[in-house]
Amino acid sequence: MAQPYVMTGLTAATMDQDSGYGLVPDAAIVVAGERIDWVGPASDLPSNYAGFDRQSHDGRLVTPALIDCHTHIVHGGNRAREFEMRLNGASYEEVARAGGGIVSTVAATRSATQDDLLASALPRVDALIAQGVSVVEVKSGYGLDRETELKMLRVARILGQQRPIRVVTSFLGAHAAPSGTNPDTYIDSVCLPTLEAAHAEGLVDAVDGFCEGIAFDTAQIARVFDKARALGLPVKLHAEQLSHIGGTALAAEYGALSADHVEYASAADAAALAAAGTVAVLLPGAFYSIHETQAPPVQAFRDHGVAMAVGTDWNPGSSPLGSILLAMNMACTLFRMTPAEALAGTTRNGALALGLGDCGVIAPGMRADLAIWNVSDPAELSYGIGINPLHQRIFGGAQ
Amino acid sequence: MAQPYVMTGLTAATMDQDSGYGLVPDAAIVVAGERIDWVGPASDLPSNYAGFDRQSHDGRLVTPALIDCHTHIVHGGNRAREFEMRLNGASYEEVARAGGGIVSTVAATRSATQDDLLASALPRVDALIAQGVSVVEVKSGYGLDRETELKMLRVARILGQQRPIRVVTSFLGAHAAPSGTNPDTYIDSVCLPTLEAAHAEGLVDAVDGFCEGIAFDTAQIARVFDKARALGLPVKLHAEQLSHIGGTALAAEYGALSADHVEYASAADAAALAAAGTVAVLLPGAFYSIHETQAPPVQAFRDHGVAMAVGTDWNPGSSPLGSILLAMNMACTLFRMTPAEALAGTTRNGALALGLGDCGVIAPGMRADLAIWNVSDPAELSYGIGINPLHQRIFGGAQ
Ligand SMILES: [Zn+2]
Ligand SMILES: [Zn+2]
Repeated sequence: MAQPYVMTGLTAATMDQDSGYGLVPDAAIVVAGERIDWVGPASDLPSNYAGFDRQSHDGRLVTPALIDCHTHIVHGGNRAREFEMRLNGASYEEVARAGGGIVSTVAATRSATQDDLLASALPRVDALIAQGVSVVEVKSGYGLDRETELKMLRVARILGQQRPIRVVTSFLGAHAAPSGTNPDTYIDSVCLPTLEAAHAEGLVDAVDGFCEGIAFDTAQIARVFDKARALGLPVKLHAEQLSHIGGTALAAEYGALSADHVEYASAADAAALAAAGTVAVLLPGAFYSIHETQAPPVQAFRDHGVAMAVGTDWNPGSSPLGSILLAMNMACTLFRMTPAEALAGTTRNGALALGLGDCGVIAPGMRADLAIWNVSDPAELSYGIGINPLHQRIFGGAQ
Repeated sequence: MAQPYVMTGLTAATMDQDSGYGLVPDAAIVVAGERIDWVGPASDLPSNYAGFDRQSHDGRLVTPALIDCHTHIVHGGNRAREFEMRLNGASYEEVARAGGGIVSTVAATRSATQDDLLASALPRVDALIAQGVSVVEVKSGYGLDRETELKMLRVARILGQQRPIRVVTSFLGAHAAPSGTNPDTYIDSVCLPTLEAAHAEGLVDAVDGFCEGIAFDTAQIARVFDKARALGLPVKLHAEQLSHIGGTALAAEYGALSADHVEYASAADAAALAAAGTVAVLLPGAFYSIHETQAPPVQAFRDHGVAMAVGTDWNPGSSPLGSILLAMNMACTLFRMTPAEALAGTTRNGALALGLGDCGVIAPGMRADLAIWNVSDPAELSYGIGINPLHQRIFGGAQ
């Protein structure tokens, strides 16, 4: 184990309380191996730490390292051509005829080799790491066949081996039915067997789905969730993004880790999420990109005590957003979350949305995943737009 | 002079035409000293360049280096506290009582030393350089007294000496009247004499103003423009951002380099800008931050042939936006500009908005200010959100 060390001269946003930053001015943090051993006002530092190495940080802000709890960063191709076609006035039909939409990403992901997918995903992971991210969730869902879904998840696992970051995978076979395929047949004969195979290979940390008029209905998602339950895997769901069809209630019923997007969730949905302990994951990048006008019911989530997380939803179609800090600014600007809620959304509540109990707050016993910033006030992290004030990231105690 | 060299293996978006990218697939560019000596299809490279050093770029996209033609990056303090107060429900009156608004930036800028201002502006310049920016415009306007306006402009000049970037200054004494001061008195007894002093010190490349109900009316701005004309300085104007009070027509009347923001400009204004050769500078960062709903009349600008530029408006209040690439994405997403228009807005038309005739396009005789990107399609630069695919920037031929 590496030598323990003491960090001083910090303003710590510990995020260890239900609301606010849990600010400790003039804080000290003791790191022992991969873990935080002690945190508090420097003046209270116990004398048994007196002999440890000390590093002073000039009053900089330290937060838990950030968590991006919803991404699709493993994918082939990009959709810039389609973006440009639409801005030049092409209809959705014309874009579709030109091979655009999710179909193009599925085709590009299927034809990519595992090495291709890895090579294109690594710079995305590096960009997140450069913003102080220590945990990234990665979904499958652009294969829609056994081989490609497995390939995507293998690449996700390799990302976590090749870079100092924790990768949490979600199996998203129920993302869309391949064109020309009956959705029920796809779920039963492709999606569920592929989930079993992926689980057998140790590739699945959670099971996700897309519950929407253009994807799968609640009965189809329920079959996927039943299989997940049988395999002992937690679930989460893309729910109520474009319309209200009951995905959020279904997620709550299954005790899901999270219900994601939830622009069209109701106050009753908020109550159900709260009762189930399910996190609402808000994804302002997609809201911004698709010109959505219905914001998620943030006030209802507050009123019912639903934990809110924030993610990039980094994907090539509806949210080519590569910045978790920008997701925080958008959560404030577009959804009127407070900067403290946005930061909780990418730390404490991001961890909850992934079922991780050992990160997301600065407290004794937690992983020493920390981000040190060239700012003094935690509100600055959400206030800046397209600005990255990271000074240093610490991952499992390693600097 | 450095040895001339030939760059090959490039897809060049030369931006040397009125519309589109001016794409040259499989291009070669010859750089001699600070200038571009030749550009065209590699197969047409004249034989007299055969002996020069060659660098291959694996098919990467090259564009003119980017130009941010509207910023306020020299300023003291930040307004994160105010951002947080508002999101916690404070009224504008409460924010003002707590010392918020432009008053707080003026106070912080006045109390900052020249070295303080320089130290806080340098990371902003570095962030722009890291995105391929070669020219940045910097305004005064947070001093509103002689000493501080001069200090801001001196810092702007020093930025261009300490970093490999061209800084173009605008005197913005007519940004706001200091609180408690009569605007006419301020213009006549502070703003105009300060402009003369700044010009005498060689600190002013152009003269700007804020024409708005909350700032100065057209008669007051006209006095500033008359002084600029007497000094032989070009003018530009913050016009029609929040309401229509005639600033755009005034700017056209004075043959301004640019009219900036222009959300509330009319079709008649567009015609006037076109006739005057005045550039419309679109600033989607402010539009986004202040939740503006009136987009600038992009179609009228197109119809009348008004050149459109795009800038960050990087400032601590209405647009703490530190990314020119994100400004391009916002111009597409929020203003429905095309990716080609967005790129023209930060290259060719950005140069026009600053009165620069030697940059912003890739053509023989122009400065060798180039950006090489890890993408193959120029639409990708606007499509990504919070993503920086810069591979290499070349500034005046220097790599
Ligand atoms: Zn998603
Ligand atoms: Zn401005």
